[in-house]
Amino acid sequence: MRPRLFTITVTPRFGDVDAFRHVNNACLPAWFELGRMPLYVLFRPDMDFDLWNLVLAHLSVDFHTPMALGYDVEIRTYVSRVGTSSFTSYQEAWQRGKLCASGEAVVVHHDAIEKRSLPIPSELRTALLEHVKPEA
Amino acid sequence: MRPRLFTITVTPRFGDVDAFRHVNNACLPAWFELGRMPLYVLFRPDMDFDLWNLVLAHLSVDFHTPMALGYDVEIRTYVSRVGTSSFTSYQEAWQRGKLCASGEAVVVHHDAIEKRSLPIPSELRTALLEHVKPEA
Amino acid sequence: MRPRLFTITVTPRFGDVDAFRHVNNACLPAWFELGRMPLYVLFRPDMDFDLWNLVLAHLSVDFHTPMALGYDVEIRTYVSRVGTSSFTSYQEAWQRGKLCASGEAVVVHHDAIEKRSLPIPSELRTALLEHVKPEA
Amino acid sequence: MRPRLFTITVTPRFGDVDAFRHVNNACLPAWFELGRMPLYVLFRPDMDFDLWNLVLAHLSVDFHTPMALGYDVEIRTYVSRVGTSSFTSYQEAWQRGKLCASGEAVVVHHDAIEKRSLPIPSELRTALLEHVKPEA
Repeated sequence: MRPRLFTITVTPRFGDVDAFRHVNNACLPAWFELGRMPLYVLFRPDMDFDLWNLVLAHLSVDFHTPMALGYDVEIRTYVSRVGTSSFTSYQEAWQRGKLCASGEAVVVHHDAIEKRSLPIPSELRTALLEHVKPEA
Repeated sequence: MRPRLFTITVTPRFGDVDAFRHVNNACLPAWFELGRMPLYVLFRPDMDFDLWNLVLAHLSVDFHTPMALGYDVEIRTYVSRVGTSSFTSYQEAWQRGKLCASGEAVVVHHDAIEKRSLPIPSELRTALLEHVKPEA
Repeated sequence: MRPRLFTITVTPRFGDVDAFRHVNNACLPAWFELGRMPLYVLFRPDMDFDLWNLVLAHLSVDFHTPMALGYDVEIRTYVSRVGTSSFTSYQEAWQRGKLCASGEAVVVHHDAIEKRSLPIPSELRTALLEHVKPEA
Repeated sequence: MRPRLFTITVTPRFGDVDAFRHVNNACLPAWFELGRMPLYVLFRPDMDFDLWNLVLAHLSVDFHTPMALGYDVEIRTYVSRVGTSSFTSYQEAWQRGKLCASGEAVVVHHDAIEKRSLPIPSELRTALLEHVKPEA
């Protein structure tokens, strides 16, 4: 099966830039969050926030190269792990042909009413595995 | 009656600063919004967002002096007009003894279910008028 | 001369949405600021922030219809006034065929070294006037 | 020597809250960044951004409990590791007596001109070690 890639384009806003004239590091989690939306929609196609069944447990970002204002940034989103009731995304931010930042997020499938973790159904597991990053 | 002043203190965040090493202009509406919360609580003491009965119709900001990182900012909130179904706030941002920005916001009282504007009840009108800025 | 329109597309970020599940009002000034960048580049094509010669003096936003997550927003930027040493932009935010917000910004041309306002040179005046909104 | 604790108080802004009516996860890196400023000032007491000698290489956040609007958040900042040319901070976000989020950041000491990592001088090493979290 051909792996499918979720990609979004982010245009840095003037306020995203900090005193170093680079994109502020704290922006990356927001950009990666936007890039994960298609994964979230797999779990909740109706986007009903009152019945939302995913919770972010952990995020990390590695910063490789500063990003500048004036050039779009491509956010590429992969799935790096699918567990019993949680999965991990792996994401990259590219600007002008350079990998500028990468990050992971651990997302837990849970019951919005009972407030406890829930196994990921097999059809969603299959859907997530379609987004695993191919070997280089 | 002595006018009462709603004041909050905002600590500029590193990401609030832009490439000019000043607080980004677009931060002020967010800071003023936080400063208006006590006015909103008059209308909705339970803070129930599903029954929220206020809508922002207009905002403006005048920029007098740039603000820097490293110093707290005081946001002072007054009421400058109380109409039939809307009111206007007037707010000031002070840093190191200087008036750095000021702004107004027009807030409409409306029926969250029927989605139409609603007269401001007289007891709320009285409460709002307690926050009119005194003559200098 | 055919008026030229500066248009950018903004994808609302998850964090742009507030407790009302609409785009937070305080986001609009940041989006409009990004939309004005092409006007700023007319004055400072080298984007040298140390020699930046424009200062924002005033902004206002009118809110017409709430904006939702999941749909792109088009920001259209026009020039509504060109004065001796300042100009005013007029901008609109459109989502799903509806005008959701509009706003104005007063930008002053100034001398970055001497810190005082400076007349707008005639070639820039001409360039700005190319962006006046056509009559409907 | 008694360990010293860097603590700041953050008031959640209305726009910090997302569609779940909780503080948006992507806010935490910005709050923790503000909490690390006193550590940065140890390296650059003059706060001269042109000569800034620290670079963020990595950040991570663990989310324990959602945070709400209307209550201040205390950010506690410790040093968890001091290496040859980098150090790691460990930070906690507390609201209403609960540990809501924790995170680490790897900060590299570097030469702003030569753009390469630089050993941390012994007096700064000593200063950092004063902020190690005490054993529970």
